[in-house]
Amino acid sequence: MNPMTEDESRAFLSSGSRTGKLGTVRRDGRPHVTPIWFVLDGDDLVFMTHEGSLKGKILRRESRVMLSVDEEVFPYAFVLVEGRATLERPTAEELWPWSRRIAERYVPADMLDATAKRNAVEGELLVRVAMSKITGIRGVAS
Amino acid sequence: MNPMTEDESRAFLSSGSRTGKLGTVRRDGRPHVTPIWFVLDGDDLVFMTHEGSLKGKILRRESRVMLSVDEEVFPYAFVLVEGRATLERPTAEELWPWSRRIAERYVPADMLDATAKRNAVEGELLVRVAMSKITGIRGVAS
Repeated sequence: MNPMTEDESRAFLSSGSRTGKLGTVRRDGRPHVTPIWFVLDGDDLVFMTHEGSLKGKILRRESRVMLSVDEEVFPYAFVLVEGRATLERPTAEELWPWSRRIAERYVPADMLDATAKRNAVEGELLVRVAMSKITGIRGVAS
Repeated sequence: MNPMTEDESRAFLSSGSRTGKLGTVRRDGRPHVTPIWFVLDGDDLVFMTHEGSLKGKILRRESRVMLSVDEEVFPYAFVLVEGRATLERPTAEELWPWSRRIAERYVPADMLDATAKRNAVEGELLVRVAMSKITGIRGVAS
């Protein structure tokens, strides 16, 4: 097990089509975890979700989140992010550049416009997680 | 987006070296999420963690968990598991078959014995999550 530097952790988070597993807490105290598409923007981790989604509802009430991003091949590696989420409710036009930037990371070129357009709609929240703690470990099983 | 049958979800959970991202809730109400190695055993999802680990400590207090297992390539797929964890504190000898079965899933053959031995030690908890809800979705981005 070897700790990553913060730069290495950030590079790991942004590499390829790795998804984030967003951990939140429901009103009744149960945990919730679900995969998200995200990009880094300075010290923020940015993703989109619909205001009607379970995570959208949770985040309106409770800003504390944690994310896990990992590599599922030997010798395994992971980066954990803790922070607080702030929500923005942009217009479809304001969402477009984010929707496109996120789609660029996750879908093939021929799906890019269709995916970005589908997600840049009224009701989608732009979520910014101010990353207060980043922990990266590689060589977990070595 | 296409829902998986429960059989498909179980096959997805058990395929290859996919890790589970275990969501729990800390004493102060913050979420915790971290990758785990696991296997299915009937209706239980089984993993090991040290009693001194943060998730070990959390699980002694709060049994409700959720897990996300996903495929990070287009068109993306995921399975979410909800349930309650029960903890067993086996001897090293009792742990051995579980440690070996989990290592078989996650490490190359030449690392198998060393990894299984390293994890089958006093203080390791065997955690069984009785899966009460399994939700599988494939073709998320298609």
